[in-house]
Amino acid sequence: MKVLIVYDSRSGNTKRMAHYVEEGVKAEGVDVDVMKVDNANVDDLPNYRGLILGSPVYYGLPSAKIKEYLDSSIKHHNKLDGMVGGAFASSGGTHTGAETTILALLEALMVHGMIIQGTSSANHYGAASVGAPEDKDIEVCRKLGGRIARLVKKLNE
Amino acid sequence: MKVLIVYDSRSGNTKRMAHYVEEGVKAEGVDVDVMKVDNANVDDLPNYRGLILGSPVYYGLPSAKIKEYLDSSIKHHNKLDGMVGGAFASSGGTHTGAETTILALLEALMVHGMIIQGTSSANHYGAASVGAPEDKDIEVCRKLGGRIARLVKKLNE
Amino acid sequence: MKVLIVYDSRSGNTKRMAHYVEEGVKAEGVDVDVMKVDNANVDDLPNYRGLILGSPVYYGLPSAKIKEYLDSSIKHHNKLDGMVGGAFASSGGTHTGAETTILALLEALMVHGMIIQGTSSANHYGAASVGAPEDKDIEVCRKLGGRIARLVKKLNE
Amino acid sequence: MKVLIVYDSRSGNTKRMAHYVEEGVKAEGVDVDVMKVDNANVDDLPNYRGLILGSPVYYGLPSAKIKEYLDSSIKHHNKLDGMVGGAFASSGGTHTGAETTILALLEALMVHGMIIQGTSSANHYGAASVGAPEDKDIEVCRKLGGRIARLVKKLNE
Repeated sequence: MKVLIVYDSRSGNTKRMAHYVEEGVKAEGVDVDVMKVDNANVDDLPNYRGLILGSPVYYGLPSAKIKEYLDSSIKHHNKLDGMVGGAFASSGGTHTGAETTILALLEALMVHGMIIQGTSSANHYGAASVGAPEDKDIEVCRKLGGRIARLVKKLNE
Repeated sequence: MKVLIVYDSRSGNTKRMAHYVEEGVKAEGVDVDVMKVDNANVDDLPNYRGLILGSPVYYGLPSAKIKEYLDSSIKHHNKLDGMVGGAFASSGGTHTGAETTILALLEALMVHGMIIQGTSSANHYGAASVGAPEDKDIEVCRKLGGRIARLVKKLNE
Repeated sequence: MKVLIVYDSRSGNTKRMAHYVEEGVKAEGVDVDVMKVDNANVDDLPNYRGLILGSPVYYGLPSAKIKEYLDSSIKHHNKLDGMVGGAFASSGGTHTGAETTILALLEALMVHGMIIQGTSSANHYGAASVGAPEDKDIEVCRKLGGRIARLVKKLNE
Repeated sequence: MKVLIVYDSRSGNTKRMAHYVEEGVKAEGVDVDVMKVDNANVDDLPNYRGLILGSPVYYGLPSAKIKEYLDSSIKHHNKLDGMVGGAFASSGGTHTGAETTILALLEALMVHGMIIQGTSSANHYGAASVGAPEDKDIEVCRKLGGRIARLVKKLNE
């Protein structure tokens, strides 16, 4: 019952977010692997019960590397239904594509049949940070990790 | 442990879809109420474990009536987190806004903190029908109802 | 060669944004009417060369009143192709649905065949403000108005 | 005053669509280059007045190759404002992500400040085809090319 976090990061901001999302997962007592997309291998995907993708915002969408990871995951198509999914994104400014990036990631995870959960508190769709994550962003990242971990536990106990 | 289907319909096509989604929920042994949006009252929302919204496609988005229902649901904000959500839409043509309508509905449900599930088989985001639902659309509607019902059972048992 | 701004507003924030968008249009020497959605009448729509819609963010989407305005605009369907469109939104928090609200509005305008323009500087899709517009938001609103006005002039000269 | 069509294609369906979009551009007397994304070079982008991107639907989004093209176009950021943009997509089924793919492409083009136009007739956001383009899809592709070419002429005459 393990969660996988795959992220892309150039400036280091999305990597920092990944770290706080990881903390949120662990705080719920759920195991988690964190991998930079360059080192991630889709072969391992079916071993996980949750997948959280993180990307910098490039042209309002996930980076090409994250998309390449998603495209290559087709080898597991029809085998990931019911997995828990989530997303986070780091942007260079406010309202410059973080929401559309997160939703793009969630759309891809839905095509895999994954289960995703919003939250009635900010950030509703996933965690977003403008530049380096500040205190409120760190909290949102931890909450995202916690939400996913609890859902993984509930669905797999 | 009950599911609520709320739909808007003018021509009757979305109403027909609601009927088949209802069949899918029932086939899983889960109780379901079906209400036209004109008669639906958000007061009852917290009594349900699942909410499936259906709308005709008006300008690539849910109808104003469905949006009015969502806007009035704010009285329950913070109280619907963890509910299961789903969506279906009826359009006048292929690729004329059914996907954007379904995603708009799912976005709203995510703002309520709801749990939604895609599917690795068509239609990934929710059930869509061009005009009156044909056999393949009926099947997609039933599958949507079944998917939601199973998730409701799993999360509430 | 006139632009119409239609907005919904409860707290007054979207109304303030409408004012600054209006300033941006006027600064380009283009006439502009500003109407609260309650007083707006779709009958007048074909008289304008540009339409800018503003909405508070309700459940990640435009308000029901703005949607009602869009739904009723169907009486002019096929007659607004080539009009210039734009959108702005006021949200209660950062990354809580402003982008999805703006894109929902733009999707509706595209279904009318309208011409929309992004911008390579923030906010790419349209103007967004968290709460009351601050200096940077005011500037973004004015730029949106200016961009639309210039496009209206270019397309109608 | 030239338009560039960049497409990705594996099965050949998106390539076929590119051909019909090209026909639509040419029918308006506007020059057009068509390039498979593998051979496309962002260096040439500023020489064009219009950019039409075509992609197969991979996980509800453009292919990684098309995204890589977009990511590398950052070298021209702030220099493409006012260019005309458009999009088309080829999917494996109805309502399986063609709309979200087209909108993702349009979002990216808006981040570049491009000008895009919907249409009041199907397909509102861009051209979509399920599998190999049939007669109605061919017509939609031609219309997309024509719409973009006319807008390029109007904005650059």
